[in-house]
Amino acid sequence: MTVHVDLNISLDGYATTTDQTPENPFGDDWGRLVAAYTATRTMQERIFGDTSGAGTTGVDEKYAAAYFDGIGAEIMGAGMFGLHLHGEDPDWRGWWGEEPPFQVPVFVLTHASRPSIAFDNGTVFHFLEATPEEALRRASEAAGGRDVRIGGGVDVVRQFLAAGLVDRLHVGIAPILLGRGENLWKELRGLEAGCEVTSEVAESGTIHVTFRRR
Amino acid sequence: MTVHVDLNISLDGYATTTDQTPENPFGDDWGRLVAAYTATRTMQERIFGDTSGAGTTGVDEKYAAAYFDGIGAEIMGAGMFGLHLHGEDPDWRGWWGEEPPFQVPVFVLTHASRPSIAFDNGTVFHFLEATPEEALRRASEAAGGRDVRIGGGVDVVRQFLAAGLVDRLHVGIAPILLGRGENLWKELRGLEAGCEVTSEVAESGTIHVTFRRR
Repeated sequence: MTVHVDLNISLDGYATTTDQTPENPFGDDWGRLVAAYTATRTMQERIFGDTSGAGTTGVDEKYAAAYFDGIGAEIMGAGMFGLHLHGEDPDWRGWWGEEPPFQVPVFVLTHASRPSIAFDNGTVFHFLEATPEEALRRASEAAGGRDVRIGGGVDVVRQFLAAGLVDRLHVGIAPILLGRGENLWKELRGLEAGCEVTSEVAESGTIHVTFRRR
Repeated sequence: MTVHVDLNISLDGYATTTDQTPENPFGDDWGRLVAAYTATRTMQERIFGDTSGAGTTGVDEKYAAAYFDGIGAEIMGAGMFGLHLHGEDPDWRGWWGEEPPFQVPVFVLTHASRPSIAFDNGTVFHFLEATPEEALRRASEAAGGRDVRIGGGVDVVRQFLAAGLVDRLHVGIAPILLGRGENLWKELRGLEAGCEVTSEVAESGTIHVTFRRR
């Protein structure tokens, strides 16, 4: 069992965006940050349900496919599930409609107690208050020998990175400067120690950098 | 005439290092930041005077050669010339001995008034107090139709970038996280607007990213 992280960040390290408005709830920056990823064949199918084979098939697609490959469980923060906005709503089932792209057990880290939510496609959200180590133990059991992904947000990812719990960190770096938001690289000096770091540039201009624990 | 910047930075954007000690005056981080660049054939010749053809000849060398190609004058900050440490010494002639690698007029931005210093290899240091625009006008005249490089430090580079005076920014990104120092990307949100951004990965693992004004 290995622990994976995949994030889209800007060239200056930002993994969140700050230009949301009521009229444009995700903001333009988010679209620019994830454009190359959502354009891939894998993400077109997983996120938009397009099984026609539409979508890009180059270097970005290789990483998009790897995003789901071999993953048996996911851990995410309360914010990624939307509890910062919808935590008061007992009927909130996440952002992803009735076909969440995960298709595995997902452990949502939160102080709030909520009943688990199961979907027909295999996605089950569990809610728990736990340290990174405890959450990883639970997710690892649920993964049944497959791998665990730390999905986000960036604060949760940084906690797992700082605790030395991540075996493979992949970032897709969009060649744009956002200048503000939550920075993935904050307080991670020396993360490369004990890792092999490889990089390649996709046709889209996205720079894919991967840290693999030796 | 175009204006160029070439810098070595870490994956988290730091262009300066913080681990200097009296015993190790540049620190280990600086060596890691510039290792791939100083290993190139061009830098072996320009910095170390090795004309035997030793040094790497791959992607890093392509950028190292371009560092000097077509440059007719340079602008640098007082710190890069060493005035923060040696400004009280009227005999200080910079870090580079009697063969500074520039071989062109160099304009050092400083509040102090110092006489110009000329070297046999064509390097001449001039000292002036000027806005970025004024310094660029002086350097452009001295360059005689060739290009101008903003050499550093990172605070000076950021001033020229923020003023929209840079036509080509190239960064060689070492895949390491320094976590502290002066960050090139600070307050440069949207720098990519109006630029073509291209990237490629060298054999050394260095990620070369270039912003070219359209």
